[in-house]
Amino acid sequence: MKYTNLIKNHTATINYANRGMELENDLNLTNTYYLDNDIAVIYKKPTPIKIVRVDFDYKKSATIREAYFKMPSTTDYNGLYKGKYIDFEAKEIKGRKSFPLANINNHQIKHIRNILKHGGIAFIIVKFSLLNKIFLLKGEDLITIIDTSKLKSIPLSTFESKGYLIKEAYMPRLDYIKIIDRIYLGG
Amino acid sequence: MKYTNLIKNHTATINYANRGMELENDLNLTNTYYLDNDIAVIYKKPTPIKIVRVDFDYKKSATIREAYFKMPSTTDYNGLYKGKYIDFEAKEIKGRKSFPLANINNHQIKHIRNILKHGGIAFIIVKFSLLNKIFLLKGEDLITIIDTSKLKSIPLSTFESKGYLIKEAYMPRLDYIKIIDRIYLGG
Repeated sequence: MKYTNLIKNHTATINYANRGMELENDLNLTNTYYLDNDIAVIYKKPTPIKIVRVDFDYKKSATIREAYFKMPSTTDYNGLYKGKYIDFEAKEIKGRKSFPLANINNHQIKHIRNILKHGGIAFIIVKFSLLNKIFLLKGEDLITIIDTSKLKSIPLSTFESKGYLIKEAYMPRLDYIKIIDRIYLGG
Repeated sequence: MKYTNLIKNHTATINYANRGMELENDLNLTNTYYLDNDIAVIYKKPTPIKIVRVDFDYKKSATIREAYFKMPSTTDYNGLYKGKYIDFEAKEIKGRKSFPLANINNHQIKHIRNILKHGGIAFIIVKFSLLNKIFLLKGEDLITIIDTSKLKSIPLSTFESKGYLIKEAYMPRLDYIKIIDRIYLGG
């Protein structure tokens, strides 16, 4: 889908945005921009679903009639930039003071550890909706916090000191690749 | 899920296997083996679904009541091996003589081109079920065939000359990483 179409869809989904989908929409727009402009190939993975019942109708395609959401075992986004494997999870939260670690499940933490161990680039993107601030925090820093503190949530101040602020713009909407360039690739 | 559990599940899904899921099951087993043994981090992406209606019940989790299968815009599998981005599509076919290119949609071909352009490793794995032969064909070779011939299908002989035979084993079931080592990483 082209960027302009996504912009239209984005406008049509303002109600969704208010229900906590804004970060996801903005990242999808950004990734489409990267793809259209040959900058990076990064996608959101489909939502994992357990399908229980499917109706087949000879007139049209199959209809899923019973299915359930499954807990994701990996992060939501991955892809490729300048030959590097990129992997991240994105979360939007209402709180103003800290990011509760319960937002990222244990499988996802383990996945981030695996990515780092095998030489990939892993990070999280956290949006504090009410403050309208979006941060990128390196996977290495996330894991250090988890392993060395007993924190149940990461204070905003940690994002401000260790993280990287992603500024909102028109296109690309959230240029996180610029930060990847600077902090991982010395660009 | 651990390898032994998957083996049990695999045995329980013999009927599925007969309906063309055998390659997918074997690749999932293989990827779980790679993950459990810290060799590579490669996953099958969830099936893309367009969700139309969800019922919410206060007693249990949300139930999807109407959804449709969407055409995938990328390949099914991706991940990380020795710091390299890995991406592939897997197809199982009944024919004995050739692999119809219609099995891979245009979005997926475009995706493979993108991966190659951005420095990733891309390939396809094709199983000729009735011959019980499984081949890996490099993305570069697939694209060359598409761009330089008017073939609607790739003959078995091309897989035999340009591809790499993946032998079935107990564990890992289909050791395609061994081929990646040899042809991409000089291992």
